[in-house]
Amino acid sequence: MSSRDGFSWTEKDGLKAGVPCIGAIQPPSNLPEVAKDTVYDVVVVGAGYCGLTAARDAAVAGLKVLLLEGRDRIGGRSWSSNIRGYPFEMGGTWVFWGQSNVWREIKRYGMEDELEISYDFSRGVNRYHLVNEQGTQKFAHDEEDAMMESGLRKLVNVDGAYGKKIMPFPHTSKFTPEALALDKLSVADRLAQIKDSLTPNERLAVETFVLLCSGGTLETTSFFEMMHWWALSAYSYEGCIEYLVKYKFHGGQSSFAIRFFQEALATGNLSYAFNSPVAAVKNTPAGVHVTTREGKGYRAQRMVSAMPLNILNSIAFNPPLSVGKKSAADTGHVNQCVKVHAEVRDRDLRSYTGISYPHNGLFYALGDGETPSGNTHIVAFGGQHQHFEPDENIEKTKEALQGLVPMDIERIVFHNWSKDEFAKGAWFFSKPGLLSTHLGDMRARQGNIFFASSDWALGWRSFIDGAIEEGTRAGLAVRNDLAQARQTPLKPKLA
Amino acid sequence: MSSRDGFSWTEKDGLKAGVPCIGAIQPPSNLPEVAKDTVYDVVVVGAGYCGLTAARDAAVAGLKVLLLEGRDRIGGRSWSSNIRGYPFEMGGTWVFWGQSNVWREIKRYGMEDELEISYDFSRGVNRYHLVNEQGTQKFAHDEEDAMMESGLRKLVNVDGAYGKKIMPFPHTSKFTPEALALDKLSVADRLAQIKDSLTPNERLAVETFVLLCSGGTLETTSFFEMMHWWALSAYSYEGCIEYLVKYKFHGGQSSFAIRFFQEALATGNLSYAFNSPVAAVKNTPAGVHVTTREGKGYRAQRMVSAMPLNILNSIAFNPPLSVGKKSAADTGHVNQCVKVHAEVRDRDLRSYTGISYPHNGLFYALGDGETPSGNTHIVAFGGQHQHFEPDENIEKTKEALQGLVPMDIERIVFHNWSKDEFAKGAWFFSKPGLLSTHLGDMRARQGNIFFASSDWALGWRSFIDGAIEEGTRAGLAVRNDLAQARQTPLKPKLA
Repeated sequence: MSSRDGFSWTEKDGLKAGVPCIGAIQPPSNLPEVAKDTVYDVVVVGAGYCGLTAARDAAVAGLKVLLLEGRDRIGGRSWSSNIRGYPFEMGGTWVFWGQSNVWREIKRYGMEDELEISYDFSRGVNRYHLVNEQGTQKFAHDEEDAMMESGLRKLVNVDGAYGKKIMPFPHTSKFTPEALALDKLSVADRLAQIKDSLTPNERLAVETFVLLCSGGTLETTSFFEMMHWWALSAYSYEGCIEYLVKYKFHGGQSSFAIRFFQEALATGNLSYAFNSPVAAVKNTPAGVHVTTREGKGYRAQRMVSAMPLNILNSIAFNPPLSVGKKSAADTGHVNQCVKVHAEVRDRDLRSYTGISYPHNGLFYALGDGETPSGNTHIVAFGGQHQHFEPDENIEKTKEALQGLVPMDIERIVFHNWSKDEFAKGAWFFSKPGLLSTHLGDMRARQGNIFFASSDWALGWRSFIDGAIEEGTRAGLAVRNDLAQARQTPLKPKLA
Repeated sequence: MSSRDGFSWTEKDGLKAGVPCIGAIQPPSNLPEVAKDTVYDVVVVGAGYCGLTAARDAAVAGLKVLLLEGRDRIGGRSWSSNIRGYPFEMGGTWVFWGQSNVWREIKRYGMEDELEISYDFSRGVNRYHLVNEQGTQKFAHDEEDAMMESGLRKLVNVDGAYGKKIMPFPHTSKFTPEALALDKLSVADRLAQIKDSLTPNERLAVETFVLLCSGGTLETTSFFEMMHWWALSAYSYEGCIEYLVKYKFHGGQSSFAIRFFQEALATGNLSYAFNSPVAAVKNTPAGVHVTTREGKGYRAQRMVSAMPLNILNSIAFNPPLSVGKKSAADTGHVNQCVKVHAEVRDRDLRSYTGISYPHNGLFYALGDGETPSGNTHIVAFGGQHQHFEPDENIEKTKEALQGLVPMDIERIVFHNWSKDEFAKGAWFFSKPGLLSTHLGDMRARQGNIFFASSDWALGWRSFIDGAIEEGTRAGLAVRNDLAQARQTPLKPKLA
């Protein structure tokens, strides 16, 4: 199966839109041809991990569920294209057993032995290349670690305890005023505070790490959110590596997401329609009425909106989004990550990591795997900083790759998240001020709509883990809400 | 409500069996007085976290569930007695967000802000007391940490990487032969290997830490399992503190366990009977027939045995347990932890930690909280080493407490796990050889019985997390199994 999403390039075929994907669902709908007057218990809009979890949990609990998705595939901002026996992760990739929601699911599906470590420093160049406009410096990976750790510890040490004092419970919904005050700062502001203590190389390492996390610019990256990532990652650079970039699925993310879908489907309670972007939602006390762009209408008692923050404004909600939600959606999140995979013939690059900054379109990369043909897989990242559209100029994309480290490219694979109408960006990252003012607004229910997204999870916000956290919350909330409503003697009828 | 379990002592009332417990269930059964000829989808035997999770998940998924429990309360080896507004944790206590299964549930029930830190080093004696037959030494807590870390790193450094090389995936079901070879050693064997490298104080600190983990003796404690705890705890002493003894529920464990029970009950699919110890189980291709000691019989298509390893031999299984399971049950686990709470008038002890070893009946203790009346709560641990029965001689119990640090005792609270017929010991801890030979046997299904217990979890075996892992596994397995069976055209009828 293939998805319309994503691009691949080879010398022979040039740039092609659409790539193979085991998460593309066939048939794209299981609804009857002639629309029936069904009132679903819940309509879930969005089939990323959040929507999949909510739909699955509701279906397992016996609710009649309709899952609507604009794309032709599941997974939202996390999906893999398996090409010639090798998965290229187009979005969210890494997972860790310290992330409770995702690990619980991995355990539950018996997939705990299907993880592998992304990097492999056992052979090859085994070097960290630090490229700036002055040239290239090369370091051993333990020197890279020391530089990163030392730089990051300076960045986060706002309390003399590397964040442990100011943010002792990273999973709380109730941060102290001292912690929330960090949301007034951008990382650029924080870097200005410590500018005299960072060495030039530490500064390069720290800035690229931050941009790798946020996909924004230093000015648009909330320091609070950066501290939150640090706290979640066990307050250490080693933790950052383990939680953020170490373990991925041997078979790709879509091999995991498909389990949620299959489980939901097996209950017999799941109706679904892919290629069905939602245009409008009418939210009344009697239930919700969802209209697709094609003009098809669906009714349900409740709705789970599992769409990202950045696209909420593209849906016509009636009544409109609450003032707080609207304000958050108008602000949006800042992550315009450019993630590009290169399959290269240089076997020695398997143990490469490096940055190229601030001049290069892709500022961070690492050797992320070996394909069955023995090629090396390099994954490279850019973002709002020096932003470019990789599909618009493949030569520029290749230049940005070569600007990291010289490589002999056989294949390029990527998803342009910035031009993706169902995401309008990559994983959530907050600009200063958004979270301290609107996190509660984003999480709030409105009428019969439950808003769920990794974008406003409490714990691993922005991560697959946060998506499952939120899908779990929404699935349970809908179930409890319907159970309560159905005990009332007079059930409202849908108009 | 009160449970028959547990003991409390005060000067005024002396020793009394039975303590208050919000996990004691009233009414103790919701079954009809006159037994009906019901065939349940699944009977779950045991209402600890494992059984509660399996019963809840099955009930939520629409299965007709019967939950049988020998005690008058939920929680199994984890329960709290809330006395005068303060919870004393009689068994499993601490949880952490790095433990995926338990944290997922805490999040799901919105209890992430209900945790507090056990210790408080902000005021009082603020000292680690190291007592041995030569006398008492006192250390600052950072000296305690340094001693523990240095000693433990010597203990675990079998691979030059503090366990990271030999056990890189602590959650795997497939350990390497090198890792499994560690199961041939007891901790006593390992200590003999490193005897020249430990300082005398490091040795005392490490030995008491190991005994605190295992509740056995150094000779009966599997070094493999100790390494597994270390790997799970992020391969560091700091990790051990965070994962093992730092965060507990402000309202006590039973405030958490009750949520599982209430959710299951709210589905309308849960039948239950407490005070109903199971005596015999007939396991036929057509289903299971469970008989209680009272002689009541119940039928179900499937059974989840959520009983601990150490009591499997007290149930008459027909056909008998498989050879491997029987062998594991005959071996049993070694944890005979003696956990004793003292409410003391010494406010300064709030910041006390200490050991008294090898001569004392209780070898480890810490200031674990402050009661509403301003007293300090000390929790103390003993085990198979210098084992004693705290209910048989309260003077000896007091002496063992005073042998740790002088204290002015107002109240003592404990559960004697060794004399508990439904546990026959505390949390699972393996002797050498058991896990490398019988882990798969313990986990295996037998006919229509799914065996689930924290005792044979893959990840946080022995912990609440492992119990939920196993309950999740069993609940899902039963659901899948019944769904598959019911697609067959000829359903077997129960005899």
